[in-house]
Amino acid sequence: MTLIETFVYFGTIAFAISGALVAIDKKLDVFGVLLLALTTALAGGVIRDIMIGQIPPVNLVDPQYFLISLLSALITILFYEIIIKLNHSVIIFDAIGLGVFTAVGANAAIMLGYSQPFLIVAMGLVTGIGGGVLRDVFTQQIPLVFRKEIYGIASIAGSVSLYFVYEYAPNLSLYLCLFVTFSIRMLAVKMNWNVPIVRKAAVDSKRNLT
Amino acid sequence: MTLIETFVYFGTIAFAISGALVAIDKKLDVFGVLLLALTTALAGGVIRDIMIGQIPPVNLVDPQYFLISLLSALITILFYEIIIKLNHSVIIFDAIGLGVFTAVGANAAIMLGYSQPFLIVAMGLVTGIGGGVLRDVFTQQIPLVFRKEIYGIASIAGSVSLYFVYEYAPNLSLYLCLFVTFSIRMLAVKMNWNVPIVRKAAVDSKRNLT
Amino acid sequence: MTLIETFVYFGTIAFAISGALVAIDKKLDVFGVLLLALTTALAGGVIRDIMIGQIPPVNLVDPQYFLISLLSALITILFYEIIIKLNHSVIIFDAIGLGVFTAVGANAAIMLGYSQPFLIVAMGLVTGIGGGVLRDVFTQQIPLVFRKEIYGIASIAGSVSLYFVYEYAPNLSLYLCLFVTFSIRMLAVKMNWNVPIVRKAAVDSKRNLT
Repeated sequence: MTLIETFVYFGTIAFAISGALVAIDKKLDVFGVLLLALTTALAGGVIRDIMIGQIPPVNLVDPQYFLISLLSALITILFYEIIIKLNHSVIIFDAIGLGVFTAVGANAAIMLGYSQPFLIVAMGLVTGIGGGVLRDVFTQQIPLVFRKEIYGIASIAGSVSLYFVYEYAPNLSLYLCLFVTFSIRMLAVKMNWNVPIVRKAAVDSKRNLT
Repeated sequence: MTLIETFVYFGTIAFAISGALVAIDKKLDVFGVLLLALTTALAGGVIRDIMIGQIPPVNLVDPQYFLISLLSALITILFYEIIIKLNHSVIIFDAIGLGVFTAVGANAAIMLGYSQPFLIVAMGLVTGIGGGVLRDVFTQQIPLVFRKEIYGIASIAGSVSLYFVYEYAPNLSLYLCLFVTFSIRMLAVKMNWNVPIVRKAAVDSKRNLT
Repeated sequence: MTLIETFVYFGTIAFAISGALVAIDKKLDVFGVLLLALTTALAGGVIRDIMIGQIPPVNLVDPQYFLISLLSALITILFYEIIIKLNHSVIIFDAIGLGVFTAVGANAAIMLGYSQPFLIVAMGLVTGIGGGVLRDVFTQQIPLVFRKEIYGIASIAGSVSLYFVYEYAPNLSLYLCLFVTFSIRMLAVKMNWNVPIVRKAAVDSKRNLT
């Protein structure tokens, strides 16, 4: 098993658990919990593969990611009381998934022969946040990445670090990306870093487009 | 006209009506009703075609599905009072659409030469639920498939039955898939089958990711 | 710089500003504002490119559209007080973006060799409304195009006019499409044109699908 495969397993498990926890919290029934876990774990990679022309998407052909997600979701359902008591469990799992999927996404673009830095960073971001964005849209929340600025920035910083180190040490660059993304995200949570809202006074102004 | 084409007409009409009824109920105006009907009827097939590399998607090239959807939506607007009085009308039309599009989606993957069972079942599910998911997202509801577990399971059961029968009797397998999916879905509605919510006590726990 | 490139710059700026204004109004923080501006400006083109097989999507490869969007969003943040005081500023920017992106989208389909009128009009519409639909979905609003019928109709009318004039005067047809779309949309706003809701009495009827 290569390094990158191990990475993907980790990220898949982390995102599946994160999706299952949100679904349980939203009082979805068992199938809804499983489906939201699958969506959170698999959708980022599917969207990335569609964008870079890897058709059909790996996550829809190779059932192992599906099975790992399903198993993770079932374990989350069975051991929910334990998992939820671990403080900040959703946040930590989500941060691991963000780091792993950012690394995997940027790496996937490079492996397909693309070299444009903007595309590589974008594919890291899309893979990292795609599943979580759908998770939040389907459960009627403004996606986390729009509400927590240090979320998307963490992914972008990870991809940028991967991009610069990749040609000298490809394997190391994947670890570095995971480390950078995860650390920035967790530091932001721990430190309660907040970037200011643009204009608080803007609240009640015209927001209807007509 | 081949069997599969007849199927697609039926599913398109059923989903267009379902989308129009939801839009009318959400008090969208006439164009909004037409557009939501088109989205519900055509989006599942478009997403599936993107995923299996059928570019441009059939539903965007061949105007007949567009015209059928448009006509169905207009008829729904004109005869709304009658259609809505038919009990459970949305549910029945939606169940027909689910069964037909599941069969068509799984069949489309097979016709393009794919043989992985997971991909075939996934394409049945994506085609079957894709339009309805967008319909619900655009009208600000948690998509039905996350709330009603016997909805997605019905589609999966249909695709699995199609997969096993396909090589012996391709045509029959399409009918079988429609029958299995529609029956399971309607039985679930009639019997008021409910799968339990995972943890009711989980309601007020931490659901904000920070 | 060709005509079509100038067009795209204009539409990108207009949609980025529109996305930033909605985000500020929704009290998103700085990164959220930037990301929503980017999504609004770039997503329509990305979805169109995926649908017509232009992989990877131009907006993800060529960083200039990204940079223009980013700059526009930053300027919107800095000069928010001034921009918001310009009456109907969001509406006007949104209408410019709608017109430009409709023209660019229909043109992109033609340039790739497609000639089916339905596909060309659909690509104009998808490019024109795609970014705005995601902007609204991510900020938990029913997308504008479903609520304001003269919005989508304006785009369709623009693409149709482009389609008929294109073979005689390709350049002119782009201007015409922008003019037709923008004029219809702004007239609808100014005149407060309203298409009737289908059935007001339908409000409290059954809208749950089970």
